Amino acid sequence: MIKERNLIRQIRRIAAASKNPAVITGIGDDCAILRVNPGFELLVTTDLCIEDVHFRRAWHPAQVVGHRCLTRGLSDIAAMGGEPLACFLSLGLPQDLPQAWANGFLRGLLALARRYKVQLAGGDVSSAPQITADIVVTGQVPSGTAILRSGARPGDRIYVTGALGGSAGTLKQLFAGNAIKPTKSSPHFYPTPRLEVGNWLRKRRLATAMIDLSDGLSVDLRHICEESGVTAILISNKVPIANNADLELALHGGEDYELLFTASKHAKIPSRVAGAKITEIGEIRNRRDYSSAIQILGNNGKVRPLPQRGWQHFAGQR
Amino acid sequence: MIKERNLIRQIRRIAAASKNPAVITGIGDDCAILRVNPGFELLVTTDLCIEDVHFRRAWHPAQVVGHRCLTRGLSDIAAMGGEPLACFLSLGLPQDLPQAWANGFLRGLLALARRYKVQLAGGDVSSAPQITADIVVTGQVPSGTAILRSGARPGDRIYVTGALGGSAGTLKQLFAGNAIKPTKSSPHFYPTPRLEVGNWLRKRRLATAMIDLSDGLSVDLRHICEESGVTAILISNKVPIANNADLELALHGGEDYELLFTASKHAKIPSRVAGAKITEIGEIRNRRDYSSAIQILGNNGKVRPLPQRGWQHFAGQR
Repeated sequence: MIKERNLIRQIRRIAAASKNPAVITGIGDDCAILRVNPGFELLVTTDLCIEDVHFRRAWHPAQVVGHRCLTRGLSDIAAMGGEPLACFLSLGLPQDLPQAWANGFLRGLLALARRYKVQLAGGDVSSAPQITADIVVTGQVPSGTAILRSGARPGDRIYVTGALGGSAGTLKQLFAGNAIKPTKSSPHFYPTPRLEVGNWLRKRRLATAMIDLSDGLSVDLRHICEESGVTAILISNKVPIANNADLELALHGGEDYELLFTASKHAKIPSRVAGAKITEIGEIRNRRDYSSAIQILGNNGKVRPLPQRGWQHFAGQR
Repeated sequence: MIKERNLIRQIRRIAAASKNPAVITGIGDDCAILRVNPGFELLVTTDLCIEDVHFRRAWHPAQVVGHRCLTRGLSDIAAMGGEPLACFLSLGLPQDLPQAWANGFLRGLLALARRYKVQLAGGDVSSAPQITADIVVTGQVPSGTAILRSGARPGDRIYVTGALGGSAGTLKQLFAGNAIKPTKSSPHFYPTPRLEVGNWLRKRRLATAMIDLSDGLSVDLRHICEESGVTAILISNKVPIANNADLELALHGGEDYELLFTASKHAKIPSRVAGAKITEIGEIRNRRDYSSAIQILGNNGKVRPLPQRGWQHFAGQR
């Protein structure tokens, strides 16, 4: 049973445990006040997590939900090459939810916030029919250096961090009725936002475009292509596939929170950055040379259009 | 029936209609990019609006819900003396909601965004069991000039803008089963964020503390007292009461979005600022001189403790 005063007190205690010097005034006023360093620009991202849409209470313990919730925002900051500063949490909870659930959620969120020095600087609480968490993450980049989705050029090579499909692989097992114990090394339960990789690429100005893989490779690559006015070809046998996944899950499974980026064919991209494996998986093409659909070169040597089968919130499950 | 692509297209169209030069990159990338002017600090506020908690579809047309949703955020910016820059909307909608509802909501939000040049710069969409809108508003103030809740000092006079209880008065009629046609002049359906008054006070450094009246005078004055380490006395016959309200509603009704502020007893506060009436309603007192409870001087000449009966989300209706 949730009491608003207890919840707010708990949130303030947690906020006090993660400090960032950019936060001048945190929780306790009408607005938070942040300082953005001179010569820097501010990044803002918001992500909504709703019970039975983004997670299930039976599958995802409260701490996992808190971790995944903040990861979504941090991953967006990573995809711009940014440094996170502060987060804001709007939390809607059913009135009969045990306080222990809220505590677990906040603990999961806080552990990740501490790791990246992201201060919980504000938010809102309300009752709601299902658990609803909207996470806002703010960050900064030196002015003019954010890595956009729109910078990919024909001839650029396409890269991803890590291995793909692991999160969807676990989800598939959960849907099949298998009980899976969440472990810290599971990319589904405890995904890692690739902040160090994003920063590394931004500092060296190596990436021409970047996005994080939240909806799935096929959908997120299309976002880059649309914003850049280009198309692309993927080489299927180069796509790094997670142990518990297959090519289909690697191409269309969401929530891996790896980074997808493009770089000039002349750029020297190492095979490992900040502990993450980097794999070249294809090439950006001119839209006039090919149909506007993204192509994939199959293991059979044939090129076919890449279907779009990522996450669609209003189309039910993936 | 909501289609995600249509909804996002609609949101982008609306975003294009409200521009603010602080927004370098709006919708269409992993994060929005904002520029905060040198010498300024950033303000951030988030407010969650959930169907059947904050509004009812039967009582509140979609445009009203959109207007009220953004008002909540703008009112928080006003309460710091800030200038709004950009807003972010996380929208969770039931799958069977008519697209017309979403369009109406966005129109209501946009009309207000345009009036104050607040750019819709990002957000998220999802399906949800009930209509869920989390609004984030960012703004700026010259560094060090934001009006906090914590600056009230013993001897300061307490002021409010406008008249109080009007929103709760309408809500009471709605609860009693009366059908009320929303008009633009109704503070319940179309509240006005007091941005000009907040700015006026901040520029002249007249207010020592400020908050917006969202939860109700009794609760919001307590917030000022708690953050400032003081207590207060209200003079009941000085509290400005809306036409459709009484003293009880004026003291404890929420969602008026008027400003409550304190100023030195030597400050010259005009009776009208930017079209809004300003009324002195009491005085800040030292905590050692009185019990920590806020007192109210009744029309009978007797002083009694002011009960706390504002909005409590987890305690059901007010």
